[in-house]
Amino acid sequence: MGITLSGDQYGKAENRVVRIYRDTPRHEIRDLNVGTALRGAFTEAYTVGDQGAVLPTDTQKQTCYAFAKEKGIATIEQYGLDLATHFVDTVDPVSGARIEIEEYAWQRVLVDGTEHDHTWVRRGQETRTADIIVDDSDGTRRTWVIGGFSDLVILKSTGSEFHGFPTDKYTILEPTTDRVMATSLVAKWRFSTVYVDWDAVYDDVKTIMVAQFATLQSKALQQTLFAMGSAVLEAHPEIVEVRLSAPNKHHFVYDLSPFGLDNPNEVFHADDRPYGLIQAAVSRDDAPDAGPAWIPQRTWLT
Amino acid sequence: MGITLSGDQYGKAENRVVRIYRDTPRHEIRDLNVGTALRGAFTEAYTVGDQGAVLPTDTQKQTCYAFAKEKGIATIEQYGLDLATHFVDTVDPVSGARIEIEEYAWQRVLVDGTEHDHTWVRRGQETRTADIIVDDSDGTRRTWVIGGFSDLVILKSTGSEFHGFPTDKYTILEPTTDRVMATSLVAKWRFSTVYVDWDAVYDDVKTIMVAQFATLQSKALQQTLFAMGSAVLEAHPEIVEVRLSAPNKHHFVYDLSPFGLDNPNEVFHADDRPYGLIQAAVSRDDAPDAGPAWIPQRTWLT
Amino acid sequence: MGITLSGDQYGKAENRVVRIYRDTPRHEIRDLNVGTALRGAFTEAYTVGDQGAVLPTDTQKQTCYAFAKEKGIATIEQYGLDLATHFVDTVDPVSGARIEIEEYAWQRVLVDGTEHDHTWVRRGQETRTADIIVDDSDGTRRTWVIGGFSDLVILKSTGSEFHGFPTDKYTILEPTTDRVMATSLVAKWRFSTVYVDWDAVYDDVKTIMVAQFATLQSKALQQTLFAMGSAVLEAHPEIVEVRLSAPNKHHFVYDLSPFGLDNPNEVFHADDRPYGLIQAAVSRDDAPDAGPAWIPQRTWLT
Amino acid sequence: MGITLSGDQYGKAENRVVRIYRDTPRHEIRDLNVGTALRGAFTEAYTVGDQGAVLPTDTQKQTCYAFAKEKGIATIEQYGLDLATHFVDTVDPVSGARIEIEEYAWQRVLVDGTEHDHTWVRRGQETRTADIIVDDSDGTRRTWVIGGFSDLVILKSTGSEFHGFPTDKYTILEPTTDRVMATSLVAKWRFSTVYVDWDAVYDDVKTIMVAQFATLQSKALQQTLFAMGSAVLEAHPEIVEVRLSAPNKHHFVYDLSPFGLDNPNEVFHADDRPYGLIQAAVSRDDAPDAGPAWIPQRTWLT
Repeated sequence: MGITLSGDQYGKAENRVVRIYRDTPRHEIRDLNVGTALRGAFTEAYTVGDQGAVLPTDTQKQTCYAFAKEKGIATIEQYGLDLATHFVDTVDPVSGARIEIEEYAWQRVLVDGTEHDHTWVRRGQETRTADIIVDDSDGTRRTWVIGGFSDLVILKSTGSEFHGFPTDKYTILEPTTDRVMATSLVAKWRFSTVYVDWDAVYDDVKTIMVAQFATLQSKALQQTLFAMGSAVLEAHPEIVEVRLSAPNKHHFVYDLSPFGLDNPNEVFHADDRPYGLIQAAVSRDDAPDAGPAWIPQRTWLT
Repeated sequence: MGITLSGDQYGKAENRVVRIYRDTPRHEIRDLNVGTALRGAFTEAYTVGDQGAVLPTDTQKQTCYAFAKEKGIATIEQYGLDLATHFVDTVDPVSGARIEIEEYAWQRVLVDGTEHDHTWVRRGQETRTADIIVDDSDGTRRTWVIGGFSDLVILKSTGSEFHGFPTDKYTILEPTTDRVMATSLVAKWRFSTVYVDWDAVYDDVKTIMVAQFATLQSKALQQTLFAMGSAVLEAHPEIVEVRLSAPNKHHFVYDLSPFGLDNPNEVFHADDRPYGLIQAAVSRDDAPDAGPAWIPQRTWLT
Repeated sequence: MGITLSGDQYGKAENRVVRIYRDTPRHEIRDLNVGTALRGAFTEAYTVGDQGAVLPTDTQKQTCYAFAKEKGIATIEQYGLDLATHFVDTVDPVSGARIEIEEYAWQRVLVDGTEHDHTWVRRGQETRTADIIVDDSDGTRRTWVIGGFSDLVILKSTGSEFHGFPTDKYTILEPTTDRVMATSLVAKWRFSTVYVDWDAVYDDVKTIMVAQFATLQSKALQQTLFAMGSAVLEAHPEIVEVRLSAPNKHHFVYDLSPFGLDNPNEVFHADDRPYGLIQAAVSRDDAPDAGPAWIPQRTWLT
Repeated sequence: MGITLSGDQYGKAENRVVRIYRDTPRHEIRDLNVGTALRGAFTEAYTVGDQGAVLPTDTQKQTCYAFAKEKGIATIEQYGLDLATHFVDTVDPVSGARIEIEEYAWQRVLVDGTEHDHTWVRRGQETRTADIIVDDSDGTRRTWVIGGFSDLVILKSTGSEFHGFPTDKYTILEPTTDRVMATSLVAKWRFSTVYVDWDAVYDDVKTIMVAQFATLQSKALQQTLFAMGSAVLEAHPEIVEVRLSAPNKHHFVYDLSPFGLDNPNEVFHADDRPYGLIQAAVSRDDAPDAGPAWIPQRTWLT
């Protein structure tokens, strides 16, 4: 029987790198969770246990922390490009590298109405993410950058409908023309270039998505997601694909009629499970090939 | 052998009550996690299984949702007072009630620079809490309100020292005059009255604590906590006790010397476990008796 | 205004100590999560930032790991006694120490039907706990040991009733004579002595509690808890108090009638939140004073 | 600009279905977390909000609970096949369905040494999983079944080496010939048929993997994973591919030398983050096409 190894990658996940810039009294902070994954000619490590080609995951970790000083962390996209390029360029058996980064945002505290120089509270909203992939496996250098965020919890208390759906013998849902719509959005967008003002684009993409969510009279979460993705593609030529995954966090109108109380969409139970789950990709027709860009490391099999 | 039952309480934990105010196009939202616990003459339920005195926890749940409509949720403190008073006043065997509330804050999204009427994103920072206790067990009505927050993640990148400590044979820690200090603060403050502008006091207490954390040149997290609590007591005569629990979230200066790199407090590893844990109560000398106010429900035994 | 500091304690939480005994080819493993908390004359650290009396939490951590070698970990109770006694005996300003331990159980894997010498899988069930408190604050040495477990998830599919309860205007619950009863039990038991066969007692207490849960025809979770606690007190004279906290993990009979299906307690929805929460202490009438034994460290304020 | 929708799917995630079989006094229990995802001609829902083809996620939920009664849950694989086939066969616009199931195992409690008829404790170890995919999108019915488990926490205290690796300027790791190796394994295996004794194969696959982990003198986690996957393929002709993802849960030998203590691999610190992460697929050379089988629902974008 022939057995083939495929799709193997290895790395160091969840390096908690914090970088303080303190060249002036007004410090800056970057707070990251960094994962590295290397792909390449590692078959012998699997088949016979030969580590001769396996740069230790500990070394990958050291590199993450060292680069925070040597290269700095201007943006997570640039820092990820530095790391991925380094591994592919300098480590012989490595033909591909994937860097997955989460960034936790902080905001300066106000003291007497003034932003403090070196104290922050963590902004809890969405987590900014970046996936950077550099690949040499077919002899040609290719690079992908995917920006994104996870866990943007957003809710609208009206302006959402759901009706006109088909029914079968298991359908008891009542149609509605006014409901709460809430989600904890994961969004990722793929760039066709690395010449990007990463921070500015991030802010604008988030602004566009939030505005679409708020202003579209929604006939379904599907429609809202498509509108969010399309609006980003229309505004940002450097983005070629947007992927969205949105749990429908159900807010059920609570039945207060046993207590003689009317409840015109005022009191809700926020349920945990189950939840709807809506997912889609929206891409330009001329989007270049995504290659391995969408194959994750940390959640590869889960 | 004589066996005694004591400290029994029962209730419904984690009711996820969401209340939308939609009397005008500009909606308002209150998003709560509510727990109820009743104390009283319930011994027979334990000893012989007689439910004749046990108002079902399901009824407690229904009451939470019904009161969100009937009484409304102006503030979590007032809503909690309404619930606790109701249970003690109307349910015969109940001599005491405890209501524990967490409130998740939302902020309006901006669309074209303007706050939207009915769309919000969840502010992720601290969770506001309230514990309301009403007790009739000795024939006299007593009421306690404890305001608070949990999980305020705050960090200062300088202005913190730790030195001058004793050493023993297991001490290898080096003293430092400049370190990162970070915590995820839990704070609770006990009021001596219910005639309080709850929202205004909450905002001010948080502002005071944050300012103390930022501006005090700290010789230890202990000192910072004491300053935070004392400053609140000095500014708010209606508050008689402040309790604080602060994990010392260690940010270790990463050793970059093997790579020929200097690291003057610029690159850190944010470690998960273990962590220091510093706790204290700061109270007025003339604070009235706390009675059962500090005995929690959800974390009573954990 | 006079301000008083009280209840202060500090320590190192969640030290993840793993001890392998490898004196023979058949290894043994102890896998712990250890917290230390010291109480004593530390006021100056809070009020003026003087660390002269503050044994660093880092030192407490080092001691945990060093004692795993020096004293060993025969049982978590004995290891905790060693640590608590050490801190009170050898560190001058310390008048009290609290050690909180969780132990994760492992079981040997079977290879060809035989227990393997040095490979285990983690048993996921309940987590064994111990709280050890040594106190000298009034000049007399007192010691408390509390055994326990958390998160024993247990379910019975019949043999549980709930009826005969009072009703009010918010009561819509229907009485039942047959329901699923499930909980994730936290139990702690206080010893009056340290001369105990800790492992044997732990096993027996768990066995007794499980048997009571299984065999008692339950009229309420309250009754089941009381029976569990009482049975332990009756069988173990060295235990003087049992505390129990039990979420009522609701399994709702799913309404299949819209689909023309009968559902005689066969298909359930396991709901997350809210849940009932029932708590009580059962103690001997002649139980000695608990002192500070029940004041936790890690969950002191949460 | 042309914009294309792709990869869209929607469904109801995390239905917590519990099924009790009570035809005899000796009850049986199946405790599941079920997700459904449908693929097909849903473009109009995205582009113009037309729900005419969108079977509600609520209906999918109802079907999960109804099928627990109508079809029963003999195994999660069969139950998933019933659900997936139903959606593709009976709902017109649906051309593909994916069912993702987690099963929580319970074991009967012992009372006086005898297994109890209707009381269980949850076995906490690994969670058994199944992914069932039915696809008609190209006019031909294709079916895939993937068995698996997540979170099998397994540790060996010797029999693991790591040396012979390449070094660069960021490498400071020391080689070792004896270390603790621990992981929390996720494994999934793809079947080429649906005519399988699902429970028997599950048990045997787990047994094989555990035995390989225990007995192979490991030169790297990579080698161990490959051996585990290969051994499964060799023993089970009905399995054509095995995927494995294994965090290297680091157990660092604690440095006790400052305290004059030797530590020959006896005392460890179990670290949380970062962790190594090793992943690979092992497949037969003649494995049939996997189609969409490996594209997950719940973790599609995270």
